[in-house]
Amino acid sequence: MASSTTLYDIELKPILYSYWRSSCSWRVRIALNLKEIPYDIKPISLIKSGGEQHCNEYREVNPMEQVPALQIDGHTLIESLAIMHYLEETRPQRPLLPQDVHKRAKVREICEIICSGIQPLQNLIVLIHVGEEKKKEWAQHWITRGFRAVEKVLSTSAGKYCVGDEITMADCCLVPQVFNARRFHVDLRPYPIILRIDRELESNPAFRAAHPSNQPDCPPELPNK
Amino acid sequence: MASSTTLYDIELKPILYSYWRSSCSWRVRIALNLKEIPYDIKPISLIKSGGEQHCNEYREVNPMEQVPALQIDGHTLIESLAIMHYLEETRPQRPLLPQDVHKRAKVREICEIICSGIQPLQNLIVLIHVGEEKKKEWAQHWITRGFRAVEKVLSTSAGKYCVGDEITMADCCLVPQVFNARRFHVDLRPYPIILRIDRELESNPAFRAAHPSNQPDCPPELPNK
Repeated sequence: MASSTTLYDIELKPILYSYWRSSCSWRVRIALNLKEIPYDIKPISLIKSGGEQHCNEYREVNPMEQVPALQIDGHTLIESLAIMHYLEETRPQRPLLPQDVHKRAKVREICEIICSGIQPLQNLIVLIHVGEEKKKEWAQHWITRGFRAVEKVLSTSAGKYCVGDEITMADCCLVPQVFNARRFHVDLRPYPIILRIDRELESNPAFRAAHPSNQPDCPPELPNK
Repeated sequence: MASSTTLYDIELKPILYSYWRSSCSWRVRIALNLKEIPYDIKPISLIKSGGEQHCNEYREVNPMEQVPALQIDGHTLIESLAIMHYLEETRPQRPLLPQDVHKRAKVREICEIICSGIQPLQNLIVLIHVGEEKKKEWAQHWITRGFRAVEKVLSTSAGKYCVGDEITMADCCLVPQVFNARRFHVDLRPYPIILRIDRELESNPAFRAAHPSNQPDCPPELPNK
């Protein structure tokens, strides 16, 4: 775990506290890659020893006891959308928000549907509370509900990507959520626009490098590594 | 329900689809009031006839079948944080985000902890799925977890309000969440900063006017009206 910030640290590369399969960490990895910001990863295992995110030391980094957290510019930031907005405001290269205010609103709508309407209801910590027996059905229910809304928004906003023809924060949120949907065996056939955009981004180098299978903490025995 | 948008509508006052007790609607009501943007309310009852938000006509307004939605400038916006950012970008008077990028990040962190880390887990539609028997304990668990993190963030960010001495989006999110915490009888004594800020804002006219008890669709028999 990183020691307290010194002037020396400020000039170092940003440190991303990340877990290979965490969709919230994945969003930030994509954003960092798209903006070509070099960073180091500190893996936080969400399963080892009951979850390293709950240890006292990490709780000081992120009081929500979850990933990601980003140490950058001498500050520690949490919450993936807050981090992506910070990157956008301090590193405007390769923008992740359109110039047009209405398109910006669409991007944020899609981000919020996913980040507050879907992911929080199907993340690991909630599924533990739901229980082993019901968790698949529970996750499927909320992902399906959210994807129905996302597909509807995309039907008017999408070009090549979620909003128009440029990659935005919405795409950073969509791709990891599609991965989660597949994990829970959600039938994705009713969402052709979501599937098309996901396919489009599959081969993008920034998305590729951020994929769980390409993370340093991805277990080597993973079949799709 | 509003008919399709015409040029005439664009010059009309914004229309907020709102439910008196919805904390997400409440956030936007506060933001509109703070920025002194006149608006009309279209009440959407989340309980009448199984929930008016699920009817076909409203699903066209908000495919997530929830409130709020805001018709403004000839567009329909959904998701409270996307709406607040749109208002901030198009009506910069009485800013809801600080100028400083690190303070902006803190505001968004607090917003996200509440809007993705707490509220989605204790909203009406999720509690229906959790079931009558377990819902109070469930809501208390997630609110407590989130408030512990919010209090920790506030311990370094707060001045008179959540971030410094100016009211921001974070305050628009905090006050409705405190109301929800009280509804579920969460012990708030461990969160003195949250309580102090909530008290500070209680008498603010913009917050007062946005309070559930002052909404046109608040049931007249409500004790605290």
